[in-house]
Amino acid sequence: MLVDESLAALRRLDWRITPESRAAHRALFTPLHETHGYRAPVVHRDLAYGDDARQRLDVHTAPGAAGRPVLVFLHGGGFTAGDKTLPGTPFYDNVGGWATGNDVVAVTMTYRLAPEHPWPSGAQDVAAAVAWIREHIAGHGGDPDRIVLMGHSAGGTHVAGYLAGQAGTAATGVIAAVLLSAFFDPAPVQHQAPMRAYFGEDPDRYPMQSAVAGLVGSDVPLLVAVAERDLPDCHGQAVALLDAMLAHRASMPLFVTIPDHTHLSEIQSLGLDDEAFGAALARFIRRA
Amino acid sequence: MLVDESLAALRRLDWRITPESRAAHRALFTPLHETHGYRAPVVHRDLAYGDDARQRLDVHTAPGAAGRPVLVFLHGGGFTAGDKTLPGTPFYDNVGGWATGNDVVAVTMTYRLAPEHPWPSGAQDVAAAVAWIREHIAGHGGDPDRIVLMGHSAGGTHVAGYLAGQAGTAATGVIAAVLLSAFFDPAPVQHQAPMRAYFGEDPDRYPMQSAVAGLVGSDVPLLVAVAERDLPDCHGQAVALLDAMLAHRASMPLFVTIPDHTHLSEIQSLGLDDEAFGAALARFIRRA
Repeated sequence: MLVDESLAALRRLDWRITPESRAAHRALFTPLHETHGYRAPVVHRDLAYGDDARQRLDVHTAPGAAGRPVLVFLHGGGFTAGDKTLPGTPFYDNVGGWATGNDVVAVTMTYRLAPEHPWPSGAQDVAAAVAWIREHIAGHGGDPDRIVLMGHSAGGTHVAGYLAGQAGTAATGVIAAVLLSAFFDPAPVQHQAPMRAYFGEDPDRYPMQSAVAGLVGSDVPLLVAVAERDLPDCHGQAVALLDAMLAHRASMPLFVTIPDHTHLSEIQSLGLDDEAFGAALARFIRRA
Repeated sequence: MLVDESLAALRRLDWRITPESRAAHRALFTPLHETHGYRAPVVHRDLAYGDDARQRLDVHTAPGAAGRPVLVFLHGGGFTAGDKTLPGTPFYDNVGGWATGNDVVAVTMTYRLAPEHPWPSGAQDVAAAVAWIREHIAGHGGDPDRIVLMGHSAGGTHVAGYLAGQAGTAATGVIAAVLLSAFFDPAPVQHQAPMRAYFGEDPDRYPMQSAVAGLVGSDVPLLVAVAERDLPDCHGQAVALLDAMLAHRASMPLFVTIPDHTHLSEIQSLGLDDEAFGAALARFIRRA
């Protein structure tokens, strides 16, 4: 758990995403992870789930693991950047370490990027990775019938698009999904260049590209989360999804605001501040 | 923490409020509280904060306590029933025990009931109790400048009404509030008889009686929570509040869905299942 002094430093972090803010986030969490330990006992790196150089995944597991639920993590990066590992940092091997500490096998994956690979390439890459996992994960101690998808920011958009059927395939083996500060509907955020890079410049296509209706129609249980000090657009996107769920289902999915955290810190701190989010995530995976 | 077997029993509880469901909730949590211990070391009962027989409060504290934050709890009961203590049960002395276990002084209070005492009697009783607490709580180890209000269901409505200024007084000493499965706006729930008992039968008054605009204008930090298996109206009321907050502030308050729980269990289990809600509540009070 973050001690009081680190919690105060967390609250001082700028929530906006700037080079300075990125550096400050890394400077806060890297030594905490190094002290605490963040890496899974066994990590198999850069396994190919497709032909593109970005279609690679890492498997994080433990010796003797068998039949464990599988957490698949898609990083953020504004559709045009980001990676499963930031060299020289604990991110996002910390997701793998957190998972194995909770008796879960983790897969951290990259995916193809915009603008070279526009919508729905992300959803298609989720489908391809799920197919790989269904075939191979038992050999790493994972249960191919208990896959939980988790995407952060643009990664959450790809998970949502996959659940909404945008890859053209039904979700098989996927028993739950975590949508962390994700974008579901491009229309209200088309002023952002990264959105246009992925979804394109044609507003007439945005309603069809939105994952909201598909999520409402999906029966995969969801945990929707945002950081308290998230990008304002992420709050708006999440609440719009809740509105749609309520309007069509008369109840809402699990929804959590992660206290004190920012868009970056909520995932960079996984393993350090379980009280804020990890405990809810572990409970969600356990019961899925 | 609830062990796996009790968690399975929790998930089997009927979320609807019926005599059978009430009995099943009590039957599940009472022995768990008795095993775990639920009562604060010191309880002063039935202190009068007003002339009405219902204007009574209990103070839950610990020997040697001094300068602690004060959690004020208002029970639910559909505006027409409910009490700070249900004789022969741990409810809601468990709120007091949870609070003292977290270095917080608790006040559990009753308030006048509808239809004899209609809107805004609840908000007025919160104001009267806050005035009593401001004057007396230091003698019980509480800090009169660090009051956190928490209301469940109809009790949350009264807290919201108070924060919205419906008692005609500004909130003094109140540094935060927890709105747990509360009703903020009578208009969408006027089909429910308890709502009409408290708010009256005149739909033209409902917009003025709604606490939503007042909450949007209040600068008291909020933790809004609902149970995953809550009354559907509670989900709708909470999300409508988030919508209003987003529309006028471009950010939302802390929000938590309490996993697995029902409208009744979320508060009856306080002290037993901290992972679900108590940890978030403790963190919110600590930083307030």
